[in-house]
Amino acid sequence: MALIVQKYGGTSVADLERLRNVARRVIQTRQRGHDVVVVVSAMAGHTDRLLELAREAAERPSEREVDVILATGEQITAGLLAIILQDMGFKARSYLGHQVRILTDSLFGRARIKTVDSWRLIKDLREGIIPVVAGFQGVDEEGNITTLGRGGSDTTAVALAVALRADLCEIYTDVDGVYTTDPNVCEKARKLDRISYEEMLEMASLGAKVLQIRSVEFAAKYKVPIHVRSSFSDQEGTIVCEEVEDMEKAVVSGVTYDRNQSRIELVRIPDRPGVAARLFEALSDASIPVDMIIQTSSAEGPYANLAFTVSKADFPRALEITKGIARELGASDVLCEEDVAKVSVVGLGMKSQPGVAFKMFKTLANEGINIKMISTSEIKISCVIDPKYTELAVRALHNAFGLDREQD
Amino acid sequence: MALIVQKYGGTSVADLERLRNVARRVIQTRQRGHDVVVVVSAMAGHTDRLLELAREAAERPSEREVDVILATGEQITAGLLAIILQDMGFKARSYLGHQVRILTDSLFGRARIKTVDSWRLIKDLREGIIPVVAGFQGVDEEGNITTLGRGGSDTTAVALAVALRADLCEIYTDVDGVYTTDPNVCEKARKLDRISYEEMLEMASLGAKVLQIRSVEFAAKYKVPIHVRSSFSDQEGTIVCEEVEDMEKAVVSGVTYDRNQSRIELVRIPDRPGVAARLFEALSDASIPVDMIIQTSSAEGPYANLAFTVSKADFPRALEITKGIARELGASDVLCEEDVAKVSVVGLGMKSQPGVAFKMFKTLANEGINIKMISTSEIKISCVIDPKYTELAVRALHNAFGLDREQD
Repeated sequence: MALIVQKYGGTSVADLERLRNVARRVIQTRQRGHDVVVVVSAMAGHTDRLLELAREAAERPSEREVDVILATGEQITAGLLAIILQDMGFKARSYLGHQVRILTDSLFGRARIKTVDSWRLIKDLREGIIPVVAGFQGVDEEGNITTLGRGGSDTTAVALAVALRADLCEIYTDVDGVYTTDPNVCEKARKLDRISYEEMLEMASLGAKVLQIRSVEFAAKYKVPIHVRSSFSDQEGTIVCEEVEDMEKAVVSGVTYDRNQSRIELVRIPDRPGVAARLFEALSDASIPVDMIIQTSSAEGPYANLAFTVSKADFPRALEITKGIARELGASDVLCEEDVAKVSVVGLGMKSQPGVAFKMFKTLANEGINIKMISTSEIKISCVIDPKYTELAVRALHNAFGLDREQD
Repeated sequence: MALIVQKYGGTSVADLERLRNVARRVIQTRQRGHDVVVVVSAMAGHTDRLLELAREAAERPSEREVDVILATGEQITAGLLAIILQDMGFKARSYLGHQVRILTDSLFGRARIKTVDSWRLIKDLREGIIPVVAGFQGVDEEGNITTLGRGGSDTTAVALAVALRADLCEIYTDVDGVYTTDPNVCEKARKLDRISYEEMLEMASLGAKVLQIRSVEFAAKYKVPIHVRSSFSDQEGTIVCEEVEDMEKAVVSGVTYDRNQSRIELVRIPDRPGVAARLFEALSDASIPVDMIIQTSSAEGPYANLAFTVSKADFPRALEITKGIARELGASDVLCEEDVAKVSVVGLGMKSQPGVAFKMFKTLANEGINIKMISTSEIKISCVIDPKYTELAVRALHNAFGLDREQD
């Protein structure tokens, strides 16, 4: 008998009929002899509607109050699922963040979980009650309601799995697993049976959008396996777990892309310590996350060029800040492109395998795609390109790295 | 400088435009030098929609879970109003039942407030923050969310006024005060400037529907004056307070009616102790509130007739239970009328003034209205009549007791 935490996302709980399907799946798991703790998201679209309401109330609504409003979405789903489970003859009880209690810091809208009390849930499980926990929300030391950011219910589920020492964390979503790339862009995309936490982190942060990054970090830290699967079928999904010997031996596990990027470049800034820090401090103060950063020294003297990418939504603010800093530093120019795309290849295998970067650049060159920026890490290589080539680049790379074929 | 608790009902907070009006009124009160604590209901219709959703989920949804779902309504309003007040340049903070903390018993759906912590609100007031409290909700000893029943936000407001030792509790609603009778039925209905707690209790429980009964009981017990007024005008409303010397000297203060009544009568039951108890215990066990009860002895022997009224919604169940008890007691028959109406006159003055009952019966008789049941208390007299005569009876009584005229 295992203890399983099951998380159901927004489309899986979009209406009462789907909630009944969720209930049947939970009951099925119980009937196989397992203990289940359920985590639910808000019904699809609900959070967006609430957010819109808050933004109609004021242009910049207080983050504390927005969290109070948004937290109601998961509250309703949790209550409804408990009612449905009871109606199907099972004991069930809903829990809100402050009832579990899921303690977070006070960063409203993007709070991080600090601790999770598990005793009430354990007590319920002993008494045969199915706990249904509202995802996405917690409470800070002062008793304020906090939310964990988009996809935060994933993190709630993993955090509960950690606290309960669960055997498995199942994330039910509207896709049936993690793919080698976006099936909408490349029809040869193939579902992965397994993927390591590290690869998943690179996939997620690069736009695979299957799991909240933080949930994967959490799972990796505490070694909780995550099973990402569809709530609309009984098919196995993808297991996200530690790198294991028999894991697919691919050099590259996936190709990802992100079309919502903008690029900014400072031309001819003094090449001395503290210059980059000055800029990225200012961007960080404005809560603008920076993705790729590249600095190149100039051959002509003690000067450098500094280029970076930000998400398109942050572009206007980032450009304004950068222009200010550019004047301060005496840069000769600020260049920018509002629309660029990033394509990346990700794979644990490339750690030990040389030539992946070369193969990537060559593949793009063969298609006549110019590379505007390159950034590499141990397990991923990213290139910034003209967005109109995104699909072509993804398909070419997917093909070049043999991702359409089952690996040995 | 006074401390005022202001409660805004569902129609006053129905949309963002109305919430902005509420915010302006709160700010106005602040600018007059008063401290304000705000209590809000769910946006009009919201609670009904949530309740419907819960009932679609299961025929008999668990009361605990229904409360979890319903409590979100006030949560959203409180967050939105705090956002709007902040947008208008004021410091504000929303509070949920468990944050204040409003401790209740565990009777889900109709919980009673046990204690209210006031320190967080007092701290806020000292710091110039306007607390916006979600009405209708509390939390029990176990941390479960509870709700206080229809109109529960009134009771939240009065309970906060008590805990904060507020000078006044203002209840903003969609009517501009308490009337001598329903203006929809009798165009001569007149707004009362003042009414005693006792009269208000009789008015409310008889169908005036302006304030939750429990809030008036609470206010009466702790002598907190309530000002019932409209959020759509600046007119003074009605003050509900202790009976005072200069209070309007009317014998009768109001005429009320209730059309949703049913009448059940047990014919020829044994006239011995315990018989009535047996019946009303069974009805109480089924959570059916009984309104009027009349027992008459028979002249023919040790028999009695026992008649009572229940609300029409409870009629089928009440009839079934009564028929069972009737068989057990050997009653000769069970009579019933599913549709009856009750009209009542209420007034502190009748305590010292004889002849009110006579005048009431005569007035009804003059209009050819047959009285099916009579029930009296110190400050009210009620008659059950054919529902088709309701409006006629109300107008005739309103006229007979001179309620259309200002009193001396």
